[in-house]
Amino acid sequence: MRKLTLLFAAIGFVMTAYGQSSVTSKEWGSNEYAGIWKLSVGTPEKINLLSELDITPKKEALEQMPESILPISRSDVKTELRDGKTYISFPLEKGEKIFGLGLHFKTVEQRGRIMRLHMDHYGENDNGRTHAPVPFFVSSRGYGVLINSARYIDVWVGTAVRKDSPNAPEEKDRNADPSWPAQPYSDNIEILVPATGVELLLFAGPTMLDAVRRYNLYNGGGTLPPRWGLGFWHRTPTLFSDRDVKDEVAEFEKRGFPLSVIGLEPGWHTKAYPCTYEWDKSRFPDAPGFVKEMLDKGIELNLWMNPYVSKHSEVYNRIKSYTGSHTVWSGEVPDYSMPEVQRIMTDHFRKHQVDMGVSGYKMDENDGYDSWLWPDVATFPSGIPAEQLRNLYGSLMQYATTKMYREQNKRTYGQVRAANAGTNSYPYVLYNDYYDHKGFITALINSSFIGVLWTPEVRSSKTSEEWLRRMQTVCFSPIAQLNAWADGTKPWTFPDVEKEIKEIALLRIQLIPYLYSVFADYAFYGTPPVRAMNLENGYAIEAETEQGKLDATENPYAMAIRREVKDQFMVGENILVAPLFTGQKERKVVLPQGKWYDFYTGKLAGEGEVITVKPTDSNIPVYVKDGGIIPLWPAMAKFTDRQYPLEVRHYGTKPGTFSLYDDDGSSYDYEKGAFTRIDLNVTVDKKGRKKGKAIVPKGKKVWSFSEYNFRFMTE
Amino acid sequence: MRKLTLLFAAIGFVMTAYGQSSVTSKEWGSNEYAGIWKLSVGTPEKINLLSELDITPKKEALEQMPESILPISRSDVKTELRDGKTYISFPLEKGEKIFGLGLHFKTVEQRGRIMRLHMDHYGENDNGRTHAPVPFFVSSRGYGVLINSARYIDVWVGTAVRKDSPNAPEEKDRNADPSWPAQPYSDNIEILVPATGVELLLFAGPTMLDAVRRYNLYNGGGTLPPRWGLGFWHRTPTLFSDRDVKDEVAEFEKRGFPLSVIGLEPGWHTKAYPCTYEWDKSRFPDAPGFVKEMLDKGIELNLWMNPYVSKHSEVYNRIKSYTGSHTVWSGEVPDYSMPEVQRIMTDHFRKHQVDMGVSGYKMDENDGYDSWLWPDVATFPSGIPAEQLRNLYGSLMQYATTKMYREQNKRTYGQVRAANAGTNSYPYVLYNDYYDHKGFITALINSSFIGVLWTPEVRSSKTSEEWLRRMQTVCFSPIAQLNAWADGTKPWTFPDVEKEIKEIALLRIQLIPYLYSVFADYAFYGTPPVRAMNLENGYAIEAETEQGKLDATENPYAMAIRREVKDQFMVGENILVAPLFTGQKERKVVLPQGKWYDFYTGKLAGEGEVITVKPTDSNIPVYVKDGGIIPLWPAMAKFTDRQYPLEVRHYGTKPGTFSLYDDDGSSYDYEKGAFTRIDLNVTVDKKGRKKGKAIVPKGKKVWSFSEYNFRFMTE
Repeated sequence: MRKLTLLFAAIGFVMTAYGQSSVTSKEWGSNEYAGIWKLSVGTPEKINLLSELDITPKKEALEQMPESILPISRSDVKTELRDGKTYISFPLEKGEKIFGLGLHFKTVEQRGRIMRLHMDHYGENDNGRTHAPVPFFVSSRGYGVLINSARYIDVWVGTAVRKDSPNAPEEKDRNADPSWPAQPYSDNIEILVPATGVELLLFAGPTMLDAVRRYNLYNGGGTLPPRWGLGFWHRTPTLFSDRDVKDEVAEFEKRGFPLSVIGLEPGWHTKAYPCTYEWDKSRFPDAPGFVKEMLDKGIELNLWMNPYVSKHSEVYNRIKSYTGSHTVWSGEVPDYSMPEVQRIMTDHFRKHQVDMGVSGYKMDENDGYDSWLWPDVATFPSGIPAEQLRNLYGSLMQYATTKMYREQNKRTYGQVRAANAGTNSYPYVLYNDYYDHKGFITALINSSFIGVLWTPEVRSSKTSEEWLRRMQTVCFSPIAQLNAWADGTKPWTFPDVEKEIKEIALLRIQLIPYLYSVFADYAFYGTPPVRAMNLENGYAIEAETEQGKLDATENPYAMAIRREVKDQFMVGENILVAPLFTGQKERKVVLPQGKWYDFYTGKLAGEGEVITVKPTDSNIPVYVKDGGIIPLWPAMAKFTDRQYPLEVRHYGTKPGTFSLYDDDGSSYDYEKGAFTRIDLNVTVDKKGRKKGKAIVPKGKKVWSFSEYNFRFMTE
Repeated sequence: MRKLTLLFAAIGFVMTAYGQSSVTSKEWGSNEYAGIWKLSVGTPEKINLLSELDITPKKEALEQMPESILPISRSDVKTELRDGKTYISFPLEKGEKIFGLGLHFKTVEQRGRIMRLHMDHYGENDNGRTHAPVPFFVSSRGYGVLINSARYIDVWVGTAVRKDSPNAPEEKDRNADPSWPAQPYSDNIEILVPATGVELLLFAGPTMLDAVRRYNLYNGGGTLPPRWGLGFWHRTPTLFSDRDVKDEVAEFEKRGFPLSVIGLEPGWHTKAYPCTYEWDKSRFPDAPGFVKEMLDKGIELNLWMNPYVSKHSEVYNRIKSYTGSHTVWSGEVPDYSMPEVQRIMTDHFRKHQVDMGVSGYKMDENDGYDSWLWPDVATFPSGIPAEQLRNLYGSLMQYATTKMYREQNKRTYGQVRAANAGTNSYPYVLYNDYYDHKGFITALINSSFIGVLWTPEVRSSKTSEEWLRRMQTVCFSPIAQLNAWADGTKPWTFPDVEKEIKEIALLRIQLIPYLYSVFADYAFYGTPPVRAMNLENGYAIEAETEQGKLDATENPYAMAIRREVKDQFMVGENILVAPLFTGQKERKVVLPQGKWYDFYTGKLAGEGEVITVKPTDSNIPVYVKDGGIIPLWPAMAKFTDRQYPLEVRHYGTKPGTFSLYDDDGSSYDYEKGAFTRIDLNVTVDKKGRKKGKAIVPKGKKVWSFSEYNFRFMTE
C-alpha cells in the first residue's frame, strides 16, 4: 500500500517570490515580455528549436500575466564554453522538484535522472529518447527554462555533485553507516549542449503553471482544435476500401456510437512505406465522392502518411533534388527545413486530398526509432546537420501542414509521432507504439509540462476489462481514438462492455462544450488542457522514498525506491480524472485542497485528502472541484454546426463561474475576434440556495448553444 | 525448435584474399607491421584510446604472421569532416558478418544494429553502452578496424541506406508486397566520431581470427595470468573479519574444495564508498600476518576497491589537488590520466597492501552507470575532457596497477568493471551486476572479438540446478569465481549438487596446464583464450531469420526475428563448451567441420553437424576436436609451485600435437625467455596404434610437470 504524505502548507516558494518584488528583475537584463528573459551563451547556432517555425508570441496574453521575478539570481546560472561544448548549471534547493525535459512514460518528477534529449521512438527508458525530447524544465520554485538548441542535449538533473559546492553532502561510510546513500545529494542541474553557444529562455512564475503558460504563450499559445476534433475518432484497418469504411460507418450509426473522424491508414496510398500521397484507385475508385459522402454525414477524414517519398509518386520528380543523402524504406527524405520542400509537398497534399475536403493527417515515423530513420551521418540539401533535422523534423512537418490549412482558413487536427519546443500552437497530438496503459497516462500527465498533446489511443486489449479501462481514459484525452489499423477492433469488440463504452463515448460528446473552452484557454492563455496534478494550486503530494534493500542481483547499490503519483490528472480547471487499470479493484485518489465532488452523483468525495475508492459501477472515478461548473451537450452520436441545449452542471456549495467559449468551430476567424465568451454563473445565497445565469455579451453571436439549463448536482 | 543451416563451403572470402596477392597492399600506404595500416583522417586528437597506455606492439609475433592484404580497397573507405565531426564509411557485402563493437550480452552478430559506444554499466540493451565499448570490429571478409578515438562514437552497422549506392534496395510496397522489409538492405557501416579527426587502424586477416590476433598483438598481446589466477576464487561477504575468512578457508579445506584466491570486499577498508585503501583494524587487526598466513596456505588475496578517495584516507591530502571538479559518493575522483596520480595512488597501494603480499585488486565502478560517475560536464586537472576520461578510466587504472606489479616483477590478476581498446595485455577480467546466465555466456563469446576477458561469475541462484549450471560454466572462463560479497553463498550452498560442483571445481584445477598454455597463446600470439565459434575455421552457421509477423503492439513493423547461436564457445584450440541453462533438458550443439569427441568419455559425438544432446549426467557437454590433446594435472584442491604428474589425454583418431607452455608461473621473466615449450605429440601408425611422446627441449627448465602419462581417450 502506498503511504502518502500531504502538505497543505504548500507554496512557500511562491510567497517568497511574490514578497520580493513586483517589478521585473533588472539583473537579467532587458526582457521582451514581462517575466521572460533571454540569456545568450557563447555564439548560439543559427538553427535552434524555434528558428524554423515562424512563431509569434501571444503578446497580449503575455502582457496580461502578472509581472513576476525569477526565484534564482543571474549569478546562480553558471555557463562556460569548453571542449567545443556549452556547459550550463542551474541551482537546486532542498525539496525542489523538476518536471518536464521530455515526454516520459514512467516518471513525473525528474530530479535524480540523467537524460540525453534525443528525438526517438520511446524505448522503455525515461532517458530522454522520446517523441518529444523538449529541453524545457519547470521547477517547483516557480520558473521554467528552455535550452533552445536542436542538438542532442545532456542533462544531469540533480545527480552531479560538485566538490566546491557549499551544499556538498557529507561523506558516509557504506561499511558502517546504514544511512549511506547510493545517490548523494546534488544541488544542481548540469547541462551540456554540444555546440559553442546556446540561447536560454527563462520563464517566471510565480507558480509552475504560470511558468508553463508563459512558455506556451511565448511559443504562440496552445492549439484550438476544430470542434469536430474533440469527437470520437476511429481508424480503420490499413487495407480497407471505401466500401469497407462505409460499412463500418453504417455499423457505428446502427449501434448509436458517436463517430466524428474516420482515420485511413497506409492502404489509401497507391504505395506506402514509402508513400505516394495519392489515392489507390482499386480501394478508393472515387475519392472525391467518398470524401464528400463522409463529410455530408458529418464525418471528417484523417489520412495516415509518413515523410518518405515513393518513386511512384507524381511528386517524386519535383522533390528528388531536395532530399537527403539516405533513403528510409527506399523512400526519399525531403528536407522539410526548406521552404521549397514545404511548398512542393503541401501543393501535392492540397491537390490530392485537402482540396477535396480531407481534414487532416496522421504523420508517422518522423521521430526515428533509429533503425528507420536516416543516420546522423546523412546530409541534406539545405546544409542542416542531420542531428538538428532529426530533432526538428516533426516540428517542421507540423509547421508546413498547419500553414497549408491556415491558408485555407480551415483548422486541422491530426496526429504526429514527433514534436519539440515551439509546436504547442500546431494542431497535432502525439501517439506511439508503446502500449502500456499506465505509461500512456503518465505521458498524458507529462505532456502538460512541455507544451505538447498526447493521446493514450486504444488499439487492442486482452480482456474486456482492459478494453473498457483504456476507452474510459482515452475519452478524457486530447483525441478520443480507437486505432484499429492492425487489429480491426471496433468499440463493441467486447460485447460485455459495449454498453459502458457507448456511455463513455457519448459522455465524450457531451463534454465537448467544456473541452472546447478548456482548449480555448490553451490557445488564448497557454493553459495546458489536460494536465499534471503538480500544476494545481493546493496539490502538494510528496513522492514517497523507501530505503533501498541490498540485493546483489536486483539492487546491488541498495538504491532507494521512489514512488510518485502518476495515475491521475486534471482536465481543465474543474475535472479530476482518476483512471482505473486492468485488475484494479480499488485505488487511492489524491484530492487537492478544498472540497471535491463525484462527477456522476454530485456527492462530496472528500476535502484535501487521500481517499480510497472502490468503484461500485463501471465508471472510472471523476471528481469536480467545489463550485465547479461543467457545461454539457446532450448525449448524441452525431453533432453538426448548429445550436444544442446546454446542461450546465454545478457541483458543491461554493458559487462558481465558467467562461464558456464559442466560435464557428472550424475556421481561424476567432483569431480576428469572431468568438464569444458566455459567462456561466452560479450564485449561492446565505441560505445556500443556488441560482444559475448565462450571460451572453450583447450583440455577440452564439454558434453552439440554444439554451442554458442549470443543474445543481450537489444537494 | 531452432532450425540451423550448416555451410561447409565456408571460407570463400579467405580464398579470394589469399588468391589476390601475398604482398602487402601498396594502396594503403606504408605499414609499420605486415597486415596493419594506419589511416589518418583530419586532425586526430592528441588523446586517443591507446595514447595514454604505453603499449608496445608484439613485433616479433606480428612479423611471424602471414603477410596479407585487406579485402577492401582504399577507395571503399569514405571519410569526410563535417559539422565538427568525422564521418567514416566502410562497405558491406551481401552475407558479410560483423562482430565486435563492444561487450554485448544479447547479440553476437552486429550487422543491423545501431550503437553509441559509451563506457557504462550494461543497461540491458546492446546499444553500445557497456563495460567495454571497444570501437573495434571484425568482418567475416577477414579484416578488422579500430576507430582509435576515446570519444563517444556512433555506429550504424548495416542499417543506413544511401540513395547513391549501386546496391540500393528496390522500393517495395507494404500495402501489397508481403516481402516488404522493415529494414531494407544496407551496404555499409557508417560511423560518426564527434571530433575533427581520427586515426583508423586496419588489420588484415586472412581469417577473422588472424585479424583479431593482429589487433591483440598490436596492442601488446594478451595477458598471461599468474598460474594461481586460473585456480578457484572465492569472494567473501563484505564485512568479514580475518577470523571469518580463516573459518571459511578452513571449511574449503575440510570439504576438499579447491581454493586459490580469496577476494575481500569493501569491508577491508576503514571506510568505503569512498575508499581509504587502508586496512580496517577492527576487522583485520594484523593485516600483514593475515596476508602471510593465507599465502603460506597457497591462497592469494584480491582486494576490492573503487576509484573514489575518502577524506579519511592518508592519501587524501596528496591526491586532492589532482582530482576532478565533481565527487562520486562524496569521494574525490583522481585524474588517472596524470602520471602523478598513478604514482601517488600506487605508492599508497604498495605501502598498504602490495608490499605485504596482496596479489591484486578488483577495481569496481570505473565504468559509470551514469548516476554514480562524474557527469560529462566535469573538469579534470590535466585538462582531459570528461568524455574521453570516462572511456579511458578503467584502462588507466589497469595500466597504473599493472605497472606497479610489473615493477615488482610480479604478475597480478584481477577484476575490473571497465576496459577499452588496448587493455588486452593487462591482467584484468571484466564482470558486472547484470546476472542473466545466458547473457553472461554471450558476453564470454563477444569478449573474444575485442581483446578483453570476461567472467560469468557466480553469486547466487534460486535453485540448485541454476547453481550447478552457473558453476559449470564459470569453471570454463577466465576467472572461476564465486562472488559471495552480498549473499554469503559457498560452493556447497546447495547440498544436493555439492558433489557435482566439487567435481567441476577440481576439473578446473586439472585443466590449469591446458588453460595456462591457452593463455600463453594469447600473450605470445594474440589468440583469444576463450572464444566465439565464429572465429573457428570450418564453423559457418548462419543465423536464422524468421519473417516477422505483424502485431500492432509487439511488432508493429513486422520486424524479422534473427536467431543466432550464442550459447557455445571454444576454450583454446581443442575444447568446445556447450553450457546448459536452468530448465534445459536437452540442447543443440553445432560441431564445426571434422570429428568431435566427448570430453568425458572420448566417444565420437559427431562430425561437422548439429547434434542434439540430452545430458544423462550432471556434466555440461564438452567436446574435443579430432586429434586434440588436453594435458591435465591431478584433481587436487591445492597446488603449489612444484611439479605434478601430467595426464596427457588424446582424443579421436588423428595424430595430434600440443605446445605445452611452462614457466615460473608468477614473474615476468618469461618475457626475457625464461619459459619452456614442451611438445606433446601423438602419432598414429597405419594400423591405428597411437603413441605419445613429450619432448622437452634440451637444457630447458620444467617448473610444473614431473611426468607425462598419455591416455588415449578414443578406442
